[in-house]
Amino acid sequence: MNLVIIGTIGLDDIKTPFGEVESALGGSGVYASCAASFFSPSGLISVMGNDIPEEYLKLLNKRKVSLEGVSKLGKTFRWSGFYEFDMNEAKTLKTELNSLAGFKPDVPTDYKKAKFIFLANIDPDLQLEVLSQMEEKPFVVLDTKNYWITSKKDSLLKVIGKTDLFILNEGEARQLFETPNLIKAGKIALKLGPKYAIIKKGEHGALLFSDGKYFSAPGYPLEEVKDPTGAGDSFAGGLIGYLASKQVSNKLVSGKRVSFEELRRAVVYGSTIASFCAEDFSLNYLKNINSKKIEERYNIFQKIREF
Amino acid sequence: MNLVIIGTIGLDDIKTPFGEVESALGGSGVYASCAASFFSPSGLISVMGNDIPEEYLKLLNKRKVSLEGVSKLGKTFRWSGFYEFDMNEAKTLKTELNSLAGFKPDVPTDYKKAKFIFLANIDPDLQLEVLSQMEEKPFVVLDTKNYWITSKKDSLLKVIGKTDLFILNEGEARQLFETPNLIKAGKIALKLGPKYAIIKKGEHGALLFSDGKYFSAPGYPLEEVKDPTGAGDSFAGGLIGYLASKQVSNKLVSGKRVSFEELRRAVVYGSTIASFCAEDFSLNYLKNINSKKIEERYNIFQKIREF
Repeated sequence: MNLVIIGTIGLDDIKTPFGEVESALGGSGVYASCAASFFSPSGLISVMGNDIPEEYLKLLNKRKVSLEGVSKLGKTFRWSGFYEFDMNEAKTLKTELNSLAGFKPDVPTDYKKAKFIFLANIDPDLQLEVLSQMEEKPFVVLDTKNYWITSKKDSLLKVIGKTDLFILNEGEARQLFETPNLIKAGKIALKLGPKYAIIKKGEHGALLFSDGKYFSAPGYPLEEVKDPTGAGDSFAGGLIGYLASKQVSNKLVSGKRVSFEELRRAVVYGSTIASFCAEDFSLNYLKNINSKKIEERYNIFQKIREF
Repeated sequence: MNLVIIGTIGLDDIKTPFGEVESALGGSGVYASCAASFFSPSGLISVMGNDIPEEYLKLLNKRKVSLEGVSKLGKTFRWSGFYEFDMNEAKTLKTELNSLAGFKPDVPTDYKKAKFIFLANIDPDLQLEVLSQMEEKPFVVLDTKNYWITSKKDSLLKVIGKTDLFILNEGEARQLFETPNLIKAGKIALKLGPKYAIIKKGEHGALLFSDGKYFSAPGYPLEEVKDPTGAGDSFAGGLIGYLASKQVSNKLVSGKRVSFEELRRAVVYGSTIASFCAEDFSLNYLKNINSKKIEERYNIFQKIREF
């Protein structure tokens, strides 16, 4: 397995001004691995309950997501939330940890030599545990959430120190680095260890930082955002999926040698996948896209930036 | 005179987390005409009081701003305000209209055949009055402020209908068009008459809309924003100054034939000038830049969005 992803599997109740879903397939690991699948298969490390509908497992299977590293335990993690008119921020109504509470990740032997790993949003102690079980140091991409900045900052800083690419959003960057200026925040992020840092800005695109280098990706001009849930996970999943596919097709690009140029393209592929995700609830839109649609939208990203 | 600008001349008291100034030179007409001056001289239509310091007039003179259309009346318009930690929004402490209250614009004969006019932020009735005095229909660029959306919406809509390029910021677009989605807002703006619309997003750059066409300009990665006052006026001033300079150097580009391609470059030149403006209070930074610095920064704008 070339690409490994640790993250949650969840059942989501979501309401937005454009509709609502109940017990929809969700979770950071699900969004990320499905997003990655358009470029590369992946092995998911996660936990789910016995209540997970069969059709959801079929979907993951169809999307080339290996569930060898997924344990089954009690009831599935549940999240319920809503978005208001401006669609900017998810408001949480209820979180039931369920099987996540007793989750002890056990990395399958076949995953341990992966060249790429994505630590999607989950308890940073679990991210550290999975990293410690890997046998060759992979290219590590890390995502997190404001909740962990508040409740587990020490563990989070420890994971950041072991990360090659740290991804966080605008609000999290301002909170973690205590500055309103995102350019400053990006530079502080690099001082904590990662070679690369990305600040996601939702509709405004994303900023990529490396020592002395900088890239500003545009947002996709989406007129209809139905449900932004999972867009951030899809961004990172698409990005690392693209990088992992390059690794396979080009032996020269080892995980440790991901270039700034390659990463810029990966950011745009990630943005492309994220924009599809936001067009409908859960994986409803994402699951039906294909390479042709992805390339078309990638080309639009290029056109809207030309001057 | 090829380029005419109507806007305010003001004396500003401004406080930001990075310092403060008192009775500094400001006003939408001042920022816009100085910004334009790096590409093209302009004729300012405005009013000021007898209390305006001689050094400010010298500065405008040095920046090739003709004051033939500026009346002198009583005391100069004054604004005092401050910015908090996030520097996103100016909080007004006090506005003294003074000479602005009795201002009746009188367009000098030499200005009436201008090919380009910028209606900078000022009462939309004054913008309409100036437009009605022009003898040949110029390329009209319009800027406004949330204040006029609330207090003079009818007059504002009337000016928008006579405009070729309508510029407004993110918050104003959401307010005027009652949608959180900026892509939708841009399209609604075009329905009101203008061939082009621009939504300014501060640090996140700017969006340019035309029928079926779209351009997303990045923001300049500025680590130190000392004072954002006038950055929006400088953006528009730089943009129209650049367009007017093309008009002079290339007889084929008449005001009515500004192309989308030319406008994209104008947006980036405008963003370049605006980024200089924000680096210090009042015109302190802007007044000392030159073509070399502008081209250098324009090239950085090109590099940071390449992928």
